Amino acid sequence: MDVLQAIFTRRSIRRYADKKIDDKIVDKIIHAGMYAPSAVNKQPWHFIVFEKKETCNAIMEIHKSATMLAEAKKSILICFDENLQHDDGYGLLDCSAAAQNILLAAHALGLGGCWIGIFPRKNRMEGLRAIFRLPDNIIPLAVISLGYPAEAKETPDRIKPDRIHYESW
Amino acid sequence: MDVLQAIFTRRSIRRYADKKIDDKIVDKIIHAGMYAPSAVNKQPWHFIVFEKKETCNAIMEIHKSATMLAEAKKSILICFDENLQHDDGYGLLDCSAAAQNILLAAHALGLGGCWIGIFPRKNRMEGLRAIFRLPDNIIPLAVISLGYPAEAKETPDRIKPDRIHYESW
Repeated sequence: MDVLQAIFTRRSIRRYADKKIDDKIVDKIIHAGMYAPSAVNKQPWHFIVFEKKETCNAIMEIHKSATMLAEAKKSILICFDENLQHDDGYGLLDCSAAAQNILLAAHALGLGGCWIGIFPRKNRMEGLRAIFRLPDNIIPLAVISLGYPAEAKETPDRIKPDRIHYESW
Repeated sequence: MDVLQAIFTRRSIRRYADKKIDDKIVDKIIHAGMYAPSAVNKQPWHFIVFEKKETCNAIMEIHKSATMLAEAKKSILICFDENLQHDDGYGLLDCSAAAQNILLAAHALGLGGCWIGIFPRKNRMEGLRAIFRLPDNIIPLAVISLGYPAEAKETPDRIKPDRIHYESW
């Protein structure tokens, strides 16, 4: 899939078909995340792939709008090591760029994905820390739910010319 | 360009040829940024396109490693409106996803780009606030410098299998 087509047609997909995702496809998607830029090339990320129903249910208990996990075939928790990031704050940006690569790669490979926000909500971060037994230095940023799409979405018009400025505000 | 190819071959390009970038290409790249996902679809971003030498020089005065601005043909300051973001913290992630779309779109269109970190450095944020006359509610996240590449870079191996975990940490 062409990169501009992927960027302009990617949508948040929350309904998934009952079809397995091959492990090699998940690897490829995570590798795409690992090719994001990061501050001073620190690559501070970790990825936890999960599919167990008990894990999905535990997340839905603490994150009421994470209902897409009920149908997700695989999901990826994106975290960063605060000791590996360039300086406090950069890990958030590095992992967000990785998340976007993951969403685009998933879309290109025929999957649908949805960014489930964890950071900056303290209760979600602490909830996921407990569920995944994260060490103190590992900060959970987002979960990306994945599956073959069971919903189709139009491409909306998101172009807002008033958000583009020239030379100064 | 294929999206996976774009993701895996994108590099930070800091040297640029003396060749103008068509305004339509810059528009297309910014539109790609506007198609990033954002928390609760708030799309809190603003983009300031600049090319004036005095602006580039002023930034390089306060940000000593932003030397790529000396050759950049156009640059884009990515900001967000903290009153538009879903909640405090989300604007950083939304704009980072937009920045990654911008870098991929630039690469696909034959340009090189580099993410110049502004957030979380307070002196850079306040410096850019003054240079671009940003209102108090507008938070500068990053500058993306752009130009036709005057350097070629190999694709490194960034795949780190030890960063992939299964079901739990």
